Amino acid sequence: MRLIDHHCHGAVTGPLDRAAFEALLTESDRPPPPGCSGFDSQLGFAVRRWCAPVLGLEAHCDPGDYLDRRAELGPDEVNRRLLRAAEVEVFLVDSGYRAGELLDGPAMAAAAAAEVREIVRLEAVAEALDGVSAAGFADAFDRVLDDAAAGAAGFKSVVAYRQGLDFDPHPPTRREVTRAAGRWLRRGRPRLDDPVLLRHLIWTAVDRGGPVQFHTGFGDPDLDLARGDPLLMTSFLRATRDRGAAVLLLHCYPFHRQAGYLAQAFPHVYLDVGLALNHVGARAPAVLAESLELAPFHKVLYSSDAFGPAELHHLGAVLFRQAFGEVAGQWSKGDAERVAELIGSGNARRVYRL
Amino acid sequence: MRLIDHHCHGAVTGPLDRAAFEALLTESDRPPPPGCSGFDSQLGFAVRRWCAPVLGLEAHCDPGDYLDRRAELGPDEVNRRLLRAAEVEVFLVDSGYRAGELLDGPAMAAAAAAEVREIVRLEAVAEALDGVSAAGFADAFDRVLDDAAAGAAGFKSVVAYRQGLDFDPHPPTRREVTRAAGRWLRRGRPRLDDPVLLRHLIWTAVDRGGPVQFHTGFGDPDLDLARGDPLLMTSFLRATRDRGAAVLLLHCYPFHRQAGYLAQAFPHVYLDVGLALNHVGARAPAVLAESLELAPFHKVLYSSDAFGPAELHHLGAVLFRQAFGEVAGQWSKGDAERVAELIGSGNARRVYRL
Amino acid sequence: MRLIDHHCHGAVTGPLDRAAFEALLTESDRPPPPGCSGFDSQLGFAVRRWCAPVLGLEAHCDPGDYLDRRAELGPDEVNRRLLRAAEVEVFLVDSGYRAGELLDGPAMAAAAAAEVREIVRLEAVAEALDGVSAAGFADAFDRVLDDAAAGAAGFKSVVAYRQGLDFDPHPPTRREVTRAAGRWLRRGRPRLDDPVLLRHLIWTAVDRGGPVQFHTGFGDPDLDLARGDPLLMTSFLRATRDRGAAVLLLHCYPFHRQAGYLAQAFPHVYLDVGLALNHVGARAPAVLAESLELAPFHKVLYSSDAFGPAELHHLGAVLFRQAFGEVAGQWSKGDAERVAELIGSGNARRVYRL
Repeated sequence: MRLIDHHCHGAVTGPLDRAAFEALLTESDRPPPPGCSGFDSQLGFAVRRWCAPVLGLEAHCDPGDYLDRRAELGPDEVNRRLLRAAEVEVFLVDSGYRAGELLDGPAMAAAAAAEVREIVRLEAVAEALDGVSAAGFADAFDRVLDDAAAGAAGFKSVVAYRQGLDFDPHPPTRREVTRAAGRWLRRGRPRLDDPVLLRHLIWTAVDRGGPVQFHTGFGDPDLDLARGDPLLMTSFLRATRDRGAAVLLLHCYPFHRQAGYLAQAFPHVYLDVGLALNHVGARAPAVLAESLELAPFHKVLYSSDAFGPAELHHLGAVLFRQAFGEVAGQWSKGDAERVAELIGSGNARRVYRL
Repeated sequence: MRLIDHHCHGAVTGPLDRAAFEALLTESDRPPPPGCSGFDSQLGFAVRRWCAPVLGLEAHCDPGDYLDRRAELGPDEVNRRLLRAAEVEVFLVDSGYRAGELLDGPAMAAAAAAEVREIVRLEAVAEALDGVSAAGFADAFDRVLDDAAAGAAGFKSVVAYRQGLDFDPHPPTRREVTRAAGRWLRRGRPRLDDPVLLRHLIWTAVDRGGPVQFHTGFGDPDLDLARGDPLLMTSFLRATRDRGAAVLLLHCYPFHRQAGYLAQAFPHVYLDVGLALNHVGARAPAVLAESLELAPFHKVLYSSDAFGPAELHHLGAVLFRQAFGEVAGQWSKGDAERVAELIGSGNARRVYRL
Repeated sequence: MRLIDHHCHGAVTGPLDRAAFEALLTESDRPPPPGCSGFDSQLGFAVRRWCAPVLGLEAHCDPGDYLDRRAELGPDEVNRRLLRAAEVEVFLVDSGYRAGELLDGPAMAAAAAAEVREIVRLEAVAEALDGVSAAGFADAFDRVLDDAAAGAAGFKSVVAYRQGLDFDPHPPTRREVTRAAGRWLRRGRPRLDDPVLLRHLIWTAVDRGGPVQFHTGFGDPDLDLARGDPLLMTSFLRATRDRGAAVLLLHCYPFHRQAGYLAQAFPHVYLDVGLALNHVGARAPAVLAESLELAPFHKVLYSSDAFGPAELHHLGAVLFRQAFGEVAGQWSKGDAERVAELIGSGNARRVYRL
């Protein structure tokens, strides 16, 4: 099953001790309770089950042994082994978050022996604007986005984190943008969380024809998950449905059935259950099956949302292939093969024009 | 397993070309993306799997072959075959939507060799009121409802589409109804979406002793699904629980577990997962099982919510019987048989006094 | 599998006729429709399947035979048999609700041959305050809580019932508490439902270091389930995450996946699917599996939330052991055993310092 991972981050460049590795296996920003192990989760079990053999260990090996072996091989070899064994043809990489710790595009491509294309994180581009005035914000953003988007495959919004998916569905006026930019500049350009500017970024990407990815569903504790339900975007989806820009709902869990409805109801809406499949480990078939209830099969994509350990890029692919095999077992062989092609890579190729 | 389909629409009378047929397999009002097929969904796969043999084709046949055979047999024969093979004893039909394209009651009964009873769509009755004044609205509605309800099995509200299930739980006063009717008449009697009038329609049906069906859960993109969660009706259900009118929550997906809670908590609340079972196809057992977690077995009914192609009336019954068989496999044989009788037809017979 | 039932109520002391027994098998406060049986539910089927043999009857026996046998054995013998066969080592008992009908701690311990520890229901303690003034409310509550908490294992809040989980996340000021207490006293000390006082109770328990249990998810029809989603507590959880008090989300259904996210994201959050497993009966494996998707395995506990019939204490344990066995079947034998120890009793031992 050919795979395009349509949303992930880079693999981590440096070595990871046990605390650092465990910290990257959870969305929490705190360590586990004293005496408890970050490996005691579906994701931790899945790493020991599926990644250990790729590093030459027995499945289910002890976490200590796993990390010893990891250190022994070194980050480059670990990345190379896990990324290549994922057998992913193209990675679409959002490098707008903690890029300094992660392989950049060319390094990722070399390690994985795969193609790498960029996803432009809208908020990161705006936050990097330099020497801009309130009145000049919109034009400056447009210019910088031109550069950033050259060669990129699409855009991404993290409005779910910054405000919530219940954002005002309509584009702000030029005047509102100028005023909001003024406020933001006077506040000393903090993390961009102004509702008007966030909407301006999104509509700029829509006006360029997208595709635009949205973080939806669970994530780290910065998030208010109740405001991460993609149904909160319904009016926005209605407002954009004839604009020609595809909207891709990422992760979605535990609202993936709701996302499936949106993917059926609106012609430009797509979804994946990336991130979720890794975290739920052995439960991946159940979650993938739910995401494929209402969503038409030309509206679902594969992603890992891996960030950091190449285990996550690897597991995403392993768990997805297994889960898909179980779900597709209910269909005829011909149907299963055709849907595998669509969801594994064909839909991504079409949406991102790869 | 004897079945009463307690909520559906008529079968389509005319021939359907591929685009028209595909359009009736989705809740979307837009075609699939270029190069994609509306058959690529759980519902599309289920049609090819289960309906093809009824038309004399092999299971899983090509969509093109399926539609050719459909055209060759002609609408009457297609309807006759699929409706009869559903082996449904009674259809309760809501004919308040696009009735001109669909078989009417007697034609449906003849095609299916089954009994047909009417479900009165409250908003359609109000919208058909003729020559009414603001002050006369309530009485006129009452009179017309008398006629409509004669021989009908129950009422239906689509307040979920027109406003959302978070409607004010209390009945409006006569004066509020008059004022609202005045506004509606002055606006030129558009689609009835006035919150006061919508509530008045519902409470009129409650005062007549019901039963009252409510669209809940997913539907076409007119809907704001976040406002289709039946939990939003909790205060209304509390206000009506001792009024003697049964309330039937239709479809419910993806809020069917929430609906199951309401069916357990409130003595007059019932539910089905019609529409959903057809759309989720091979996943029907999973969805039906979830709907039978909290709901007492005397509170669940069967429906297809079929609209248009008789494939939908047929599939509803096929998928429900299969799904029920899987769920009931966890119980004793005697229990399974008794619950099959309740959910398949007994509960409907009791609630609708059939 | 060793079990600590970290949240339940006492077993009922007296005999139960059929209506009384059925009333305790549902969260509804109304009887089933005429001609229908309260045994016709997943819980009713589970009682006949799993409890009948403990009383010397055949599995799946008739409800009438079951209740005859129950009457013949008498309440003491029924309690003794069912509680002991549950093989639970410790019961943490909330005795703040209808205590007069239930076994008290020592009687429960004797009947079950198990240890019993108290969970202090905060609202019940406040409502029992005697001769208190508005200005003296906070101190008086503090003093009485001291007594109540001596020897107790933890606290419990039913703010979900009294107000909803969307309560203001911050502690009220002393002055706000005095004013609210004044209002409550002037109203004649009704059921405590003042938002300020409810928050004061919760923060008092947090300041004592917890642990604090919260009713979340479904319950009786007093509840507005839409306000019982634990995600509504997100800001409160953010405000308390470094306070050292564990927060335990009880029941959670149908929001148990949301609870699993909170248990992963926040270091002090724990969950169970007690109450739910009993009510969903044969579906217990599916529900438990969902609760173990995102939640780390050191963050999940066992409870029955049994109230009344000892069948509920018994079934909780039986269904949990079976469900856990199914879920753990996907892991290695060593992992399954370690997680069984954590979820069955180890996590409770750690959190409640037993």
